[in-house]
Amino acid sequence: MNEPIKAYIAGFLDGDGSIMLQLVKRTGYKFGYQIRASVCFYQKSKYKAELNKLKEILKFGYIRDRNDGMTEYTIVGIDEVKKVLEAVKPYVLFKKAHVSRALEIVNEMQGKEKLQEDKFLALARMVDSYSTLNYSKKRKNFSSDVEKFLNKRADPPP
Amino acid sequence: MNEPIKAYIAGFLDGDGSIMLQLVKRTGYKFGYQIRASVCFYQKSKYKAELNKLKEILKFGYIRDRNDGMTEYTIVGIDEVKKVLEAVKPYVLFKKAHVSRALEIVNEMQGKEKLQEDKFLALARMVDSYSTLNYSKKRKNFSSDVEKFLNKRADPPP
Repeated sequence: MNEPIKAYIAGFLDGDGSIMLQLVKRTGYKFGYQIRASVCFYQKSKYKAELNKLKEILKFGYIRDRNDGMTEYTIVGIDEVKKVLEAVKPYVLFKKAHVSRALEIVNEMQGKEKLQEDKFLALARMVDSYSTLNYSKKRKNFSSDVEKFLNKRADPPP
Repeated sequence: MNEPIKAYIAGFLDGDGSIMLQLVKRTGYKFGYQIRASVCFYQKSKYKAELNKLKEILKFGYIRDRNDGMTEYTIVGIDEVKKVLEAVKPYVLFKKAHVSRALEIVNEMQGKEKLQEDKFLALARMVDSYSTLNYSKKRKNFSSDVEKFLNKRADPPP
């Protein structure tokens, strides 16, 4: 990716993208939750071809038509999201705080398949704190839910 | 403006901006209407400082808080709009058609204070055609209104 392409993506992200960190409930996961990092771009579905071009440039992610006339281009995964954030970091103007705080979290997670429980809970709290940057009515899980799961798991069987 | 800055603005415009060409009714104007070219960026008002930074980079335009929690950064004027369009042209991905067709119109207008009536009407028709790229419920004036004005003006007094 050359510098103008990184700058273009920074501008597009500032205008119409979002960087999300979420706690997703997962059955069978050791700590009950997954920390999901994603970058998402939205456009009217008539611009699907252009979203596909963007995907060709970035080389990862998937494109999905919603049923409200919009198409989403979503990049999920620690490594992929980190690459996007590092590319746009020097150029973002509006989402500077989002990018630097999301990078802190993904840097802590990258390459670490097995996190210690206290580390995972600390990251879940960073996700809480990050999420205050994005106003969302749909937010479901908080670090307190992770904590409840961990405490419950630690309880001796009755 | 260096290339990454042009590319950033192209991305931001693709994501959250609009390029408008409008026929504005003007009392006292020879042809009854003005062809108004503008580029507009929208963000939540909490990002006003960042919109101001963008304005410092571009060096023209004005910023206005709307009463719905949004702030608009608007660039009006043939010369200014032309500069923006030429800067972003190599980099836009989603608004390629908007940029090239708006440039055709502003190029025809630039430096020409006095247009001939037939030329003005031809440009008004190009504005009609351009406007089909932007879906707008608020659109008020069409080249047919300009034509009506011109025909009425041409009528001999009763």
